[in-house]
Amino acid sequence: MNKTFQSFRKLTQSLADLKAMGSILSWDQETMMPSKGAATRARQRATAAAIYHEKLTDSTLTDLMKRLEDMDLASWERRCLQEMRREQAKALCVPRRLVEDLAETAATAYEFWVKARHESDFSKFAPWLGKILSLKREEAQCLNISESLYENLVDEYEPGMKESALERIFNRVHPHLTLLLERIMASPVQSRIRRFKGSFSTPAQKGFGRDVLSAMGFDWGAGRLDQSPHPFCTGFSPQDVRITTRYLQEDFSAALFGIIHEGGHALYEQGLNPTHHGLPICEAISLGIHESQSRLWENQVGRNRAFWSFWLPRLKNAFPGQLEDISHDEFILSVNLVESSPVRVTADEVTYGLHIIIRFELERALLNGDLEVKSLPTEWNQRMESYLGIRPRNDAEGVLQDIHWSHGLIGYFPTYLLGNLYAAQLMDQAVKKIPDLEKNIAAGNLMPLREWLRTNVHMLGKTLTADEMIVKITGETLNPEFFLSYLKTKFEDLYEL
Amino acid sequence: MNKTFQSFRKLTQSLADLKAMGSILSWDQETMMPSKGAATRARQRATAAAIYHEKLTDSTLTDLMKRLEDMDLASWERRCLQEMRREQAKALCVPRRLVEDLAETAATAYEFWVKARHESDFSKFAPWLGKILSLKREEAQCLNISESLYENLVDEYEPGMKESALERIFNRVHPHLTLLLERIMASPVQSRIRRFKGSFSTPAQKGFGRDVLSAMGFDWGAGRLDQSPHPFCTGFSPQDVRITTRYLQEDFSAALFGIIHEGGHALYEQGLNPTHHGLPICEAISLGIHESQSRLWENQVGRNRAFWSFWLPRLKNAFPGQLEDISHDEFILSVNLVESSPVRVTADEVTYGLHIIIRFELERALLNGDLEVKSLPTEWNQRMESYLGIRPRNDAEGVLQDIHWSHGLIGYFPTYLLGNLYAAQLMDQAVKKIPDLEKNIAAGNLMPLREWLRTNVHMLGKTLTADEMIVKITGETLNPEFFLSYLKTKFEDLYEL
Repeated sequence: MNKTFQSFRKLTQSLADLKAMGSILSWDQETMMPSKGAATRARQRATAAAIYHEKLTDSTLTDLMKRLEDMDLASWERRCLQEMRREQAKALCVPRRLVEDLAETAATAYEFWVKARHESDFSKFAPWLGKILSLKREEAQCLNISESLYENLVDEYEPGMKESALERIFNRVHPHLTLLLERIMASPVQSRIRRFKGSFSTPAQKGFGRDVLSAMGFDWGAGRLDQSPHPFCTGFSPQDVRITTRYLQEDFSAALFGIIHEGGHALYEQGLNPTHHGLPICEAISLGIHESQSRLWENQVGRNRAFWSFWLPRLKNAFPGQLEDISHDEFILSVNLVESSPVRVTADEVTYGLHIIIRFELERALLNGDLEVKSLPTEWNQRMESYLGIRPRNDAEGVLQDIHWSHGLIGYFPTYLLGNLYAAQLMDQAVKKIPDLEKNIAAGNLMPLREWLRTNVHMLGKTLTADEMIVKITGETLNPEFFLSYLKTKFEDLYEL
Repeated sequence: MNKTFQSFRKLTQSLADLKAMGSILSWDQETMMPSKGAATRARQRATAAAIYHEKLTDSTLTDLMKRLEDMDLASWERRCLQEMRREQAKALCVPRRLVEDLAETAATAYEFWVKARHESDFSKFAPWLGKILSLKREEAQCLNISESLYENLVDEYEPGMKESALERIFNRVHPHLTLLLERIMASPVQSRIRRFKGSFSTPAQKGFGRDVLSAMGFDWGAGRLDQSPHPFCTGFSPQDVRITTRYLQEDFSAALFGIIHEGGHALYEQGLNPTHHGLPICEAISLGIHESQSRLWENQVGRNRAFWSFWLPRLKNAFPGQLEDISHDEFILSVNLVESSPVRVTADEVTYGLHIIIRFELERALLNGDLEVKSLPTEWNQRMESYLGIRPRNDAEGVLQDIHWSHGLIGYFPTYLLGNLYAAQLMDQAVKKIPDLEKNIAAGNLMPLREWLRTNVHMLGKTLTADEMIVKITGETLNPEFFLSYLKTKFEDLYEL
């Protein structure tokens, strides 16, 4: 490694440390911090972010990168340079004043969102959403990535993703989901599906969740599982990756699928190449690819018939009274219940995409000025009715359900659906490439799948773009047909269509 | 507040945030971090420390301070300026190279200390202690505080404390402790003292510890209690103060007195003036004053007869089988057992000071070159025999028992004994100033004491020096007679001397 690159690496390492510090402050805040610590913690996080920005835009870094530009670099070194330049360019073109304005506005907007949701009254949040949108519009104008405002914002979460591609993909997916949902709703199987009943003790839920996580290959020496109101995964390095879940007394499945989902994210973070740590390539490619890992484990594995051949007897053992008389078939139907509901986070695999498409259409229209904030609840409810056949009873379970917009996250929602699509395309390959994958899963052996993902996805970090990686693994770019065909096969079988 | 001071405050606030980040990284490492995270965490902490140093010595801060120098400032503002100048001067006069050398050497020395202690072989640690000492000597020479090398190092932990004062105080205390110890050892009461027996469940220990901590006025909304191998207290702001303890199955008193001790530290941190947060005066005055708070609660309150009038029935309730037949008098003797032992951390109130005096004499001789490292174990054991009447069986329970020197903490030990002296002098005043203090304590009402400490000590932060504060509260500077007389009265009574 040449000396200039070594100096560059030293700087990127400090940046990685500062980023990790910010994440540690957040994790602690969500899981451990006493309530009164909030105000000081907000300032500590702001200070960490300000120093990060200062170091990222420092001329020492810029000068080093200029010199490296003309040098003979290995391809992974060049990728590091590209990534850092990309991040620095974004930081430089958005004025400091706007960054601070956005942070402050988002902090207040979040509080008003909490209040508005509590009172189920969108009008309390509306002016703040308006402010957020006008600042995000300004930010999008500063970013010199494309002519599309929306695409400029999406790029932050899904680098390289085009607005036109999103439109094409979602337009293809939309009618298929609608049709499948209609067919499922008309199926006589629907009325036979059992819902879990009883009381599921938290310690037993924890124990079972930890067993599944261990089987997935989660490294407990390099990670933790805790509780928090909103489940999440965060990684401070491949050697320290933490997930959280929340336990509901009346339903084990919320915590369990939460653990498997966050566990999928965690395997990605733990699987990043540790020798790359501190370099810009030692990160997940994109939020869509990250979500592909959580969704693959949660849905393609965790809601799969074979998986429960091994785990159902163990689950019954953990909750003998509550699940005694449920058959394997009944259980599989129960964890795959399809049902239109107003709430995204608990949506099934079929309706989930429709929730995302609604958000994609609305946030784009809001950003572009094609939709006024005050008309948002009406538009939301109309789309819910037309796409999912239901109307939210109020703003709280409708337009106010998600935290994202209050945080200024515009262009983020599409990555959730992209994750499902990537997951299906990757799993299609995994089945072809891993000998006896289904048999292994049925025998409780999840390691071949984890190893395949580690080698083909996790270890790469950002050495490839999302497009390059998916082509390398599957031979083609992102193709929604894998997801559509996966859903069709799975649910036609389950619902006897 | 003038504008220049506001700009100054903004910088000190960032410094406080960075310091807090370092503390959060440490707390997490001790209590939560998975084992494999250690290497990355060390680097994150080094990065935080380096940025702190950079910001502390930045010319923007220096320039602001120069301008403030000639301005008309309130006395607390002037104190802020003095404190920051003091810290900056230290940071500037010790060369970066030396700081890094010390950090690296200490990291390695610590590992060799662990190994040497494990194998009970001082020779494995000796060369590293030698290196530490020569670097600390160099550091002491850089510091321009006095002509005494040792005093320069002590100043870091106990600002303003003179070597001559330490010598005078410890010389006064030493013979009194020796004499009292001899008299106690000769007392027939000694052989009657009961030791606790049985198994004390951790949840019951936790519950009781939390009850005591609540009664002390620990604010759970602004703090936590966790477990770690070595108990400690750390504060990220007055609104977020965390303590730890460790639970021994066979003896409830280790965890309990640990909780009361760390609780005393925590009340200090929670009691700092929150409107001063982010300023250099929003910190404990010195380690000695900090230790006075923990010792006051642990010994003057927690091992006091009145205290247990309220708490013993409750303790018996928590452990009915194990403590059923012990009387109040027997219990008080048991938690005040005086006994020469080779180990400092579990030492009683009488012998504790002798342990410190040994370390004070030896570390000073080592630093000044009056004692060679290779002769340290012999000197240690001789002093143990002459001051405490016992010889450690091996290096592990002798010269290698403490972590401090391996970390480069030279001049730190005296603050432990100073804490005991300050505690006695403060408590003497508290008894005079708080109406019915003893009665309140006997009734379980600890709040009047906490309020008195809050008003007279905690709230002040660094607005006064240790000397100024102790004069203000007690009318005189630190006077060891309070401690000696407290010990004499207490133990003459207990041991029927």
